[in-house]
Amino acid sequence: MPTLDQLTAALRTFVADRDWQQFHDPKNLAMLVASEAGELLAEYRWVRGEEADAHSREPQARARIAAEVADVGIGLLLLCDRIGLDLGEAIAGKLAANAQRYPAEASRGRAERPAGLRPGSE
Amino acid sequence: MPTLDQLTAALRTFVADRDWQQFHDPKNLAMLVASEAGELLAEYRWVRGEEADAHSREPQARARIAAEVADVGIGLLLLCDRIGLDLGEAIAGKLAANAQRYPAEASRGRAERPAGLRPGSE
Amino acid sequence: MPTLDQLTAALRTFVADRDWQQFHDPKNLAMLVASEAGELLAEYRWVRGEEADAHSREPQARARIAAEVADVGIGLLLLCDRIGLDLGEAIAGKLAANAQRYPAEASRGRAERPAGLRPGSE
Amino acid sequence: MPTLDQLTAALRTFVADRDWQQFHDPKNLAMLVASEAGELLAEYRWVRGEEADAHSREPQARARIAAEVADVGIGLLLLCDRIGLDLGEAIAGKLAANAQRYPAEASRGRAERPAGLRPGSE
Repeated sequence: MPTLDQLTAALRTFVADRDWQQFHDPKNLAMLVASEAGELLAEYRWVRGEEADAHSREPQARARIAAEVADVGIGLLLLCDRIGLDLGEAIAGKLAANAQRYPAEASRGRAERPAGLRPGSE
Repeated sequence: MPTLDQLTAALRTFVADRDWQQFHDPKNLAMLVASEAGELLAEYRWVRGEEADAHSREPQARARIAAEVADVGIGLLLLCDRIGLDLGEAIAGKLAANAQRYPAEASRGRAERPAGLRPGSE
Repeated sequence: MPTLDQLTAALRTFVADRDWQQFHDPKNLAMLVASEAGELLAEYRWVRGEEADAHSREPQARARIAAEVADVGIGLLLLCDRIGLDLGEAIAGKLAANAQRYPAEASRGRAERPAGLRPGSE
Repeated sequence: MPTLDQLTAALRTFVADRDWQQFHDPKNLAMLVASEAGELLAEYRWVRGEEADAHSREPQARARIAAEVADVGIGLLLLCDRIGLDLGEAIAGKLAANAQRYPAEASRGRAERPAGLRPGSE
């Protein structure tokens, strides 16, 4: 499996070969992430929650989902590279903050606020 | 920098410790990715494109942006883990497909369709 | 109930009084719509589909949902006003196009593609 | 121009004729709004802010933008109808709340927080 650094290097070459850096200011890349996330969302839009796992295994749906997941990931890596952010460290840092904010005992099985995965946003 | 595998392992523990798997069907996780992408988007909403790089370096904005980037990344990794998808391989595969779809020469500097980063969606 | 024209007039005054037109180019307004849609999405993120109607009636959730729905609507109306588009006519036009694209008989109860509500996007 | 009530009535017939109510729980409709908002966003993704007005007048882009705006509006109206919310009143109510939260004098021309269009979200 390629590392984040290897993927970032490949993306950088891909973009430079097409002279697309000019379009990739951080604002546009945030829009790329969000619009691709909207396409990923569309894949599950009419699927019942209980059937979402099975839907994710159905070959045609799976290929589309993988492509949309990849597009969101590409957008994130392009943005991180542009603004000099290490995605892996950002995730590790956020996970550490979440662990403090949502103590395991107090949070166990409570659906009300596992918005808990986005502390700071409330 | 932690690898995707290490991050996924840490996330899995975090979620299991809180018994949150029950909320994490793929549909809900796609919603998590999209709503966090919306928060990332909000960070750049009123920023001019030419000022988006500088905005991304301003310490307070940077901390918020890093947190939102991390949240999107966490959502993606949770989804990939749930449906058994390797994020790194999905990105590498999509990049290879994009390279075919957008030949470097023909695509150079053409803004019209570097929607090109999302073949299949048009 | 206020008409779309009345709401648009009120929004125009609100924005002019604060000299916010300068931030409201169509790109920024599309970002406003999408980021507010992300907040609306977050309201239903961990709610089971079968419980989403009841959740929408719970007073506190309802107030938040109404506020997010309004924010998306405000963004849409601001965008329409900026680019000279009549929202009501656009919706009526799209509905007519959808009626042709999704003949009632052939589409009845078929979940596969009531993505049908967005012809042209596939 | 059709009123919101007229549009809602037309949508209700359209959906009933196809027996699509079964897919339209509020959670799915929030996903519809957000995924369509993502498609609207994509229309402006690589367009510079200064060129977004001109882009919105270009006939082919305009037709796509109108269709995406309509799709978001359709999603909003379907959601409002499902949960018994009056969209016009919700917008009027939010605008009144915003007027209090963002006094004209204090807010004039200040870009920092015309996130001001979404009080309550911060």
